[in-house]
Amino acid sequence: MNKDIPEISLQRLPVYLNYLRSLTDEDGKYISSGAIAGALNLGEVLVRKDLAYTSSAGRPKVGYVRKELIAALEEYLGCNDVKNAVLVGAGGLGNALLAYGGFGKYGIEIVEAYDCDPKKAGTTSGGKKICDISEMAEGIKKYDARLAIVAVPAAAAQSVCDLLIGEGIKGILNFAPALISAPEGVVVRNIDVAANLAILASMI
Amino acid sequence: MNKDIPEISLQRLPVYLNYLRSLTDEDGKYISSGAIAGALNLGEVLVRKDLAYTSSAGRPKVGYVRKELIAALEEYLGCNDVKNAVLVGAGGLGNALLAYGGFGKYGIEIVEAYDCDPKKAGTTSGGKKICDISEMAEGIKKYDARLAIVAVPAAAAQSVCDLLIGEGIKGILNFAPALISAPEGVVVRNIDVAANLAILASMI
Repeated sequence: MNKDIPEISLQRLPVYLNYLRSLTDEDGKYISSGAIAGALNLGEVLVRKDLAYTSSAGRPKVGYVRKELIAALEEYLGCNDVKNAVLVGAGGLGNALLAYGGFGKYGIEIVEAYDCDPKKAGTTSGGKKICDISEMAEGIKKYDARLAIVAVPAAAAQSVCDLLIGEGIKGILNFAPALISAPEGVVVRNIDVAANLAILASMI
Repeated sequence: MNKDIPEISLQRLPVYLNYLRSLTDEDGKYISSGAIAGALNLGEVLVRKDLAYTSSAGRPKVGYVRKELIAALEEYLGCNDVKNAVLVGAGGLGNALLAYGGFGKYGIEIVEAYDCDPKKAGTTSGGKKICDISEMAEGIKKYDARLAIVAVPAAAAQSVCDLLIGEGIKGILNFAPALISAPEGVVVRNIDVAANLAILASMI
């Protein structure tokens, strides 16, 4: 969709959006790139460049109309389009993600979860139905899902992703600490929590 | 600690380590930068440059001795130094992280968790003790912890981080979708799961 923006800029857009949403009418109608840069500890030129991708134009000496900038970021990030996602692996992390309410603000809804443990099939978690993995293909089709969250053990991650991709999933958020290969046209983002903590430990 | 390496290179080191650890003796004694680059879909020059930070030197036409390279990455990432971490917020995500066994391979141990719900104090989760938040200062001191994982609601994140920093925590892995300000000398890494999924949705 947003092929023209560098990934590093794209990654900052939700940060801008979170910050702008945290402001209130008392903070004023306008906000300058300098104020945003200062609050987020980023360079002002960088902020202006990032925001330009959303086609928001700040006005000299005044800045951006805050609500317009929020709307532009929401539009760019597709927050107003409802996007269905499925989740695979209803273990500890999977259940935590099912209970997590934060996806809605980006227009994303986890519609169903799948697990290979037959004891979990038919139960619900975080208000979401957990189905047997054999029902995954049907669910993806039914909900026209293009996004999937993978929270299975590392050893199962690639085969689960292959199944998902075979059913038309185009974007995978992978929490398994495993390297996933995916064909052209499918995007995989990895969140390796332990590696993030290790990186942090190396930085202090 | 590793101040000389760009963060973007540092972020790839656990990826190399995971990949190299996934190989077996049958994959041979040596591995070339080209083979690593091919498996991870990265440029070969980039791989060589990243690995040079760990002072590993590949041999022309032969490559790296796999086990030596693993040892160099482990050394660089501090996998052999035991580092204690605390966790704040024993909700769904916090409990999933307490049960998660993946930190040990980076030498990190979550020693204790804290929550403000008095009903949780004194219970255990994932084999870890959950204490009342009032016991946090004592626990950080007792375990000489420098790392903390924050898995509290967004509204509580800054005040929790302020407390942690006040007790000597130098690195915070923040899962709350909130902007954390921290003084110089303290590193905060944010994992905003919903934002990651939104970015992914924008890329497909």
